[in-house]
Amino acid sequence: MIELAVFGAGRMGQIHARNAALHPAVHLKYIADPVASEARDAVAAELGAILATPEEVFADPEISGVVVASSTDSHAALIRGAAEAGKAVFAEKPISLDFATVLEVAADVEASGVPSMLGFQRRYDAPFRALKERIGSGRSGRLETVLMQSRDPSPPPAAYAGTSGGFFRDSAIHDMDMARYLLEEPVARVYATGACLVSEELGAIGDIDTGMIALTTLSGRIATLMNSRRGPMGYDQRLEAFCAREVLSVGNQRESTLTVAAPDGETLQPPVNYFLERFARAYADEMDAFVRLVADGTPPLATMKDGLEAQRLVEAAIRSLETGLPVDLTPDWRP
Amino acid sequence: MIELAVFGAGRMGQIHARNAALHPAVHLKYIADPVASEARDAVAAELGAILATPEEVFADPEISGVVVASSTDSHAALIRGAAEAGKAVFAEKPISLDFATVLEVAADVEASGVPSMLGFQRRYDAPFRALKERIGSGRSGRLETVLMQSRDPSPPPAAYAGTSGGFFRDSAIHDMDMARYLLEEPVARVYATGACLVSEELGAIGDIDTGMIALTTLSGRIATLMNSRRGPMGYDQRLEAFCAREVLSVGNQRESTLTVAAPDGETLQPPVNYFLERFARAYADEMDAFVRLVADGTPPLATMKDGLEAQRLVEAAIRSLETGLPVDLTPDWRP
Amino acid sequence: MIELAVFGAGRMGQIHARNAALHPAVHLKYIADPVASEARDAVAAELGAILATPEEVFADPEISGVVVASSTDSHAALIRGAAEAGKAVFAEKPISLDFATVLEVAADVEASGVPSMLGFQRRYDAPFRALKERIGSGRSGRLETVLMQSRDPSPPPAAYAGTSGGFFRDSAIHDMDMARYLLEEPVARVYATGACLVSEELGAIGDIDTGMIALTTLSGRIATLMNSRRGPMGYDQRLEAFCAREVLSVGNQRESTLTVAAPDGETLQPPVNYFLERFARAYADEMDAFVRLVADGTPPLATMKDGLEAQRLVEAAIRSLETGLPVDLTPDWRP
Amino acid sequence: MIELAVFGAGRMGQIHARNAALHPAVHLKYIADPVASEARDAVAAELGAILATPEEVFADPEISGVVVASSTDSHAALIRGAAEAGKAVFAEKPISLDFATVLEVAADVEASGVPSMLGFQRRYDAPFRALKERIGSGRSGRLETVLMQSRDPSPPPAAYAGTSGGFFRDSAIHDMDMARYLLEEPVARVYATGACLVSEELGAIGDIDTGMIALTTLSGRIATLMNSRRGPMGYDQRLEAFCAREVLSVGNQRESTLTVAAPDGETLQPPVNYFLERFARAYADEMDAFVRLVADGTPPLATMKDGLEAQRLVEAAIRSLETGLPVDLTPDWRP
Repeated sequence: MIELAVFGAGRMGQIHARNAALHPAVHLKYIADPVASEARDAVAAELGAILATPEEVFADPEISGVVVASSTDSHAALIRGAAEAGKAVFAEKPISLDFATVLEVAADVEASGVPSMLGFQRRYDAPFRALKERIGSGRSGRLETVLMQSRDPSPPPAAYAGTSGGFFRDSAIHDMDMARYLLEEPVARVYATGACLVSEELGAIGDIDTGMIALTTLSGRIATLMNSRRGPMGYDQRLEAFCAREVLSVGNQRESTLTVAAPDGETLQPPVNYFLERFARAYADEMDAFVRLVADGTPPLATMKDGLEAQRLVEAAIRSLETGLPVDLTPDWRP
Repeated sequence: MIELAVFGAGRMGQIHARNAALHPAVHLKYIADPVASEARDAVAAELGAILATPEEVFADPEISGVVVASSTDSHAALIRGAAEAGKAVFAEKPISLDFATVLEVAADVEASGVPSMLGFQRRYDAPFRALKERIGSGRSGRLETVLMQSRDPSPPPAAYAGTSGGFFRDSAIHDMDMARYLLEEPVARVYATGACLVSEELGAIGDIDTGMIALTTLSGRIATLMNSRRGPMGYDQRLEAFCAREVLSVGNQRESTLTVAAPDGETLQPPVNYFLERFARAYADEMDAFVRLVADGTPPLATMKDGLEAQRLVEAAIRSLETGLPVDLTPDWRP
Repeated sequence: MIELAVFGAGRMGQIHARNAALHPAVHLKYIADPVASEARDAVAAELGAILATPEEVFADPEISGVVVASSTDSHAALIRGAAEAGKAVFAEKPISLDFATVLEVAADVEASGVPSMLGFQRRYDAPFRALKERIGSGRSGRLETVLMQSRDPSPPPAAYAGTSGGFFRDSAIHDMDMARYLLEEPVARVYATGACLVSEELGAIGDIDTGMIALTTLSGRIATLMNSRRGPMGYDQRLEAFCAREVLSVGNQRESTLTVAAPDGETLQPPVNYFLERFARAYADEMDAFVRLVADGTPPLATMKDGLEAQRLVEAAIRSLETGLPVDLTPDWRP
Repeated sequence: MIELAVFGAGRMGQIHARNAALHPAVHLKYIADPVASEARDAVAAELGAILATPEEVFADPEISGVVVASSTDSHAALIRGAAEAGKAVFAEKPISLDFATVLEVAADVEASGVPSMLGFQRRYDAPFRALKERIGSGRSGRLETVLMQSRDPSPPPAAYAGTSGGFFRDSAIHDMDMARYLLEEPVARVYATGACLVSEELGAIGDIDTGMIALTTLSGRIATLMNSRRGPMGYDQRLEAFCAREVLSVGNQRESTLTVAAPDGETLQPPVNYFLERFARAYADEMDAFVRLVADGTPPLATMKDGLEAQRLVEAAIRSLETGLPVDLTPDWRP
């Protein structure tokens, strides 16, 4: 059995803790969350995990790997702690909201040699994976343009948004990663436009809630991202890949296949609400990837480097939004 | 130019008159309807056709063919009149509500040698034709079962239903024809069940409005018909063909591709309403088939014989409904 | 914790054992399967269950309930054993292939007073449940006709089919149950037609593989079942409910939302393959229903009586198939 | 009867000539095309129109209106000629490839007082019209972002592209018009990116074939256009309107409702190919709008001014593409 610990007992921490506990090759030994809460104690009790401090986790020689799913501001220190303690680390994004810190942490982890991976769960999602594989098979022809649409069902509380780094850092990083993953080519130019159209509260803290980002690669291929804090149909999370011979599309997963037809038309069920439900299986597969990384070094689908590069694109989009101008990117561009 | 006449200036007569007038190889010379009406006069004026009696039509040596789209009770006499006058005839179904008459008229037409065809327009409809061709190509494998669903948007007035021969004679004959067309094998057994669930008015005149018919062919293949005078979604007219290697399906044609997605789900437009709109193109193609039949004898997709055989199946279904027992069919079975 | 035992370590036994083990309120104490197999030992080891005989299970006072998911011929004895031992029982269908035995076992269980339920998992499936609830809410208007389509991806081995009681007993019982569940009215007449069109092997043992069953209720409402051992598109499991104001439909659940569009058209993923995957969630919810039945007597969605009545309809369909005649049903009709 | 003339007997000229001839209130008197061709003579013969020169058309006092559907380089002169002759004018886009000329012609037409309209047929298309009306009704809430996708089935010959003004002038003008039509607010900033990814031939003449344009309105609302000379699925022409309470979508219209399901999935028919078929009904409705404009001054859905403004956006997009920078627009911005 592989002994694991999960940092964080919030929404994502609970997901990862459960998936770890359910994995046949894993024993979930610890849950570590400095914030005492009923939810933390309940999930630990349910899964038979010991409540511990990060120090206790890092000091335990039985622990092979840790999952960093705590609050964003604690990610960098916990990832570094894991690297120093020689534990494999599976971290939720972002590594840090401060790009300089991201660069340092990624370098430290690489220098430490511990196995590591980043939580871009879409890469593990079956339809996205099938799409990626089909492009890779050559059947579709060259990928020319990508369209990604991501809309939350409704705006988050301003309190959350305030600590999330703002709309693009919070929401567009997954799309940036997917763009890189599919295009497999450096992005040469980033342009963004956006506004606060949905939530006055978000506007009041200087954030936007509606945006569009255009990425152009060195060879002129284009990725378009449309993001919003409002999805009138619910959680709207789609991708279309326009290749030379085929158009591949990942649509929304509906709550069920029930339809209701009446004189006004036929109504299909809304998309599942929300990402925890949409990506439930992907999170489990992601945990399995971490187990294989720990067990025999099987490379994960997303690395710390991928997190760093997606975040570089996000920072460029933010710069573009602020200046109203496109940002020309070099591999070492930084905000 | 081929000179044609259309009998009947009702709903179907107008369709055929317009399609004849629009056909580049046709001159629509006459419209004949004994019932004086504004609609009759208007369509004749609009299309530049002369109002005439059947006798005048039959006596005119310029006329090559006639379209019989008048009231059902006049079909048999007009078809016979055309045959005697040596005019090609394109008749709407049914030839007659009386099966003995159907047998006689079909025999008379055949004996006369005039080119003839029956108005089973679904055979000319592009998706049904594509389905038929795909089965014919052998790609789908052997057709094993067929499911047909036909629902009117709402029940007809009892006055109409009373002259239509009843629900199965009026509504199921197209499905019976399609079953024969696709299965290409004699039906050995017919079972029907039905009831009046929708319209008390129809029940009051002894008719049903909801029915199911099961056809079994000699080799055991099955066609299932589900028919209703009520289509809660509008005009519901679908077919599925279950073959050994593929399932072919003809769905409803929606009013437009507009969809509206909201928290309750995504709503697609209802089907076009009604058969005149759904089969608009098929009726034009059917007229073209008549023109080619007249011009050079190109065989039509549906003959008087097809009308007779579809009606035999309808009569068997009615017998089954009345007796509660299946009807075993021989080629010369008659009610 | 509720202590449970599962009889049978085959396909269904494993499903139920896993769902029991995963249920937070359950301790799966025993797995009992007289046939020694690697799969049996592996699942018991994985879930920490003790291998036992039925006698040991029934004798253990800690056991509150048993799940009967063993081979069909052992169901009746195990259900009776549970009733005698005072254990709650959750049995897979059918109770027995012999209808007289079904009647006796159902009577015995009722007399014993032990809580019991039957494994009609479709009743627990989210889309079917939503459909049932919507009809129940009155929004759809009266249910008039139901269409059910069930096709296996491919024919079973003749060896399996030979012990399954034949096509209708094996495959149509779920549809019969769903028809009863939705129509909530006694079936007055059953007609069936069928043939062996798919598998010569099945024909050789006197079975059919393609069938259609028509049920007519006392008030004339109709349920149509189309069943086949061959689903060219995979596992094809659909239902349409035609109500006075709405048409409700449960479609196939596709493997994923990926689509591929090319000049020939846009291709959607095939349905999930097979019922274990399609109904994975329903089986878990069904186990939860058993837990609630044991814990506080919450009535399950399907009872032994429902099993008996669905089987009565199956037997009537088989009689109809054999005689070529409809079967008129009374509440105490038996084959 | 309203007497009309059509300039141009190419693809669009023939469409408009036929729609004029079929319109019950119109007599198509002239077809004028300086290039002698079999097609020109055939369509004139079929429709009973006289071949004439523009001078003859303008000199005929019976002519109330003209349709300018000739080659692009002749539009400006013919529109001006109509204005001078006092004929109502319905012109295909663009007025001219030279924006200064567009400004002058639009001013001249306005000064002349002749009724005029521009051929943005999408505004007349039923689903687009229904979408526009639904937004107008207030049910959908405020429109926040629009996504438009337009892909031709395959690249045009370089010879055509060379005279079309380039990719954005040829293809994006309809989308620009639709963006203006739906957003009803001035565009403040235009950004474009694009490349030649599809056709080396087009690249050789300095054109692009793949592009993305982002429009931001004064209030921060966003329209995204994705355009390509290659549509792997055929003619791909879609729009999504993201409003506060609903997402409205106009999808592709498929060739038919036939689907084919096999183990690999279920295949829907490809979109109709090409715009002449997709917008057949819209062109007829557009002709009817011209007739009503001529008959009683009913305002058309698209004016010369709309053509001018859409073209201003196109020119801004071209400027952005050339400079790599966004273009900030004022109402009198010109290239």
